[in-house]
Amino acid sequence: MENKGTKSAPLAVVGTVAIDQVETPFGQRDRVFGGSASYFSYAASFFTPVSLVAVVGEDFPEEYREILKEKSVDLSHLEVIRGGKTFAWKGKYEHDLNTAQTLETHLNVLMDFQPRIQFEEKPGFLFLANIDPVLQLSVLKQMEKPKLKFVACDTMNYWIQNKRQDLIEVLKRVDCFVMNDGEARQLTGEPNLIRAAKKVQEWGPGIVVIKKGEHGVLLQYGQKYFTLPAYPLESVFDPTGAGDSFAGGMMGYLTQSKDSSFETLKKALGYGSIVASYAVEDFGLDRLRKIKRKEIDERFDLFKKLISL
Amino acid sequence: MENKGTKSAPLAVVGTVAIDQVETPFGQRDRVFGGSASYFSYAASFFTPVSLVAVVGEDFPEEYREILKEKSVDLSHLEVIRGGKTFAWKGKYEHDLNTAQTLETHLNVLMDFQPRIQFEEKPGFLFLANIDPVLQLSVLKQMEKPKLKFVACDTMNYWIQNKRQDLIEVLKRVDCFVMNDGEARQLTGEPNLIRAAKKVQEWGPGIVVIKKGEHGVLLQYGQKYFTLPAYPLESVFDPTGAGDSFAGGMMGYLTQSKDSSFETLKKALGYGSIVASYAVEDFGLDRLRKIKRKEIDERFDLFKKLISL
Repeated sequence: MENKGTKSAPLAVVGTVAIDQVETPFGQRDRVFGGSASYFSYAASFFTPVSLVAVVGEDFPEEYREILKEKSVDLSHLEVIRGGKTFAWKGKYEHDLNTAQTLETHLNVLMDFQPRIQFEEKPGFLFLANIDPVLQLSVLKQMEKPKLKFVACDTMNYWIQNKRQDLIEVLKRVDCFVMNDGEARQLTGEPNLIRAAKKVQEWGPGIVVIKKGEHGVLLQYGQKYFTLPAYPLESVFDPTGAGDSFAGGMMGYLTQSKDSSFETLKKALGYGSIVASYAVEDFGLDRLRKIKRKEIDERFDLFKKLISL
Repeated sequence: MENKGTKSAPLAVVGTVAIDQVETPFGQRDRVFGGSASYFSYAASFFTPVSLVAVVGEDFPEEYREILKEKSVDLSHLEVIRGGKTFAWKGKYEHDLNTAQTLETHLNVLMDFQPRIQFEEKPGFLFLANIDPVLQLSVLKQMEKPKLKFVACDTMNYWIQNKRQDLIEVLKRVDCFVMNDGEARQLTGEPNLIRAAKKVQEWGPGIVVIKKGEHGVLLQYGQKYFTLPAYPLESVFDPTGAGDSFAGGMMGYLTQSKDSSFETLKKALGYGSIVASYAVEDFGLDRLRKIKRKEIDERFDLFKKLISL
């Protein structure tokens, strides 16, 4: 274990690192650097240093490691399994680009992943990206004392269907739950998203963020409500990682602001939307790798104008 | 003909007046006062006097006439066909309330409707609500000289499928086209809504408004773009007429403002959204009949706060 007794960045993420194969109406690409924690950490690193807690196989390419190092992502908690193979996902998007169809999932090293969190100094902000809720729970239990400043988590339809009780245990322990609209409806049985968000609040998290893809995002913050449309794009190239990039931008901004008030969350949702809008403009991290924080701020300012009544 | 040589209100609408039968997950109601022009004119009348150009049968209830008179809707252009029956629609909404399933359509007096527009004084603003594009075109030709200040039109999937060329002839002659997202995609073959809006602009209208139901609305105004989420509602009771109420609020506000600039359009979209948000809170016009302009302005102000970054 490389991660014993090291200091965490102010933001840490636990999730998957993957090698993807993606097919969209505009082309196909093999061996795309993917995974929930990869997108998240790259996106968040525009705002703050971030520690990546994940597992990969011995096949994990050095060039991917270099990509994360470009942004000073802390990789000292990235476990490498000797002789193991990195998690691999193959997916396809149809014409409307709204939903990914999973063609293949090879869990590989994820099968036996047991994240051991032994930070000498803990992060203030933690994101549990999409991964088995049993692992999310294990991480949370290891982190419980002293309490972190802000913990958020994500999930996916598969866990809602197959590990619902574990997921609900996770929800009891987090400040903020981030999910997409389909997952919100599936989890709560409520077609109305505001009612769905309030139902999630009853399980624990005071803050619920529902991502609606091209339709934007809504925030239920205690009794307060806020909503944003998506940044308008004429050309969406590859939606993979949009949700994780959104979460990375959001958590990155919160961490940078050292705050999780309603007003800061609103801005964080805006920054998340902007980072996601860049992420979908090319395969994998290709587009994000071409921009700097300046481009994010410029598009954020334009976005504000586009939506103000 | 009652409408010979009379003066129009500053805003006129041509469309349908109907007797609806509506089924939602929350209940069923017979003999609901409906139709595109009814919802539109009632909604618009919060902002401006409006002339309703439509046709009904001899069975058209006096109480419905009274409802429109509450709001001083000008009914002198509402043609009554002796011995005829009013247009009737029967529809059903499933759990998610997003799309109406048409169970029955009885065109009745609409079959032979030939709107004859002989205003002594024309309206400055005209809305061609959802009705056969051949009729929309006929109205436009009768109105052509002198040019009106602002003409907008709506349509539905049936006309896109069956009278595409007539619809495109209408589009050549209007300033603004209002449709929903499904119709935009169907008409243009473009899944991306911004690209769809730009394709519509090539046919004629410089201003394109795409309604996305619970996801809000987008505006393409020449090269300028604007977007709004929907006003958040926990309880949508009956979505019938939401689009027409939206258009009524939008056109009503434009007419009141005597302007169709980008800035005014943005606000008009906001007012349209608010009027629609009230409309869906009960069957037919029931909710709109309980509110005053003051409630619209209050919800508009709250909406501004809910969406400002």
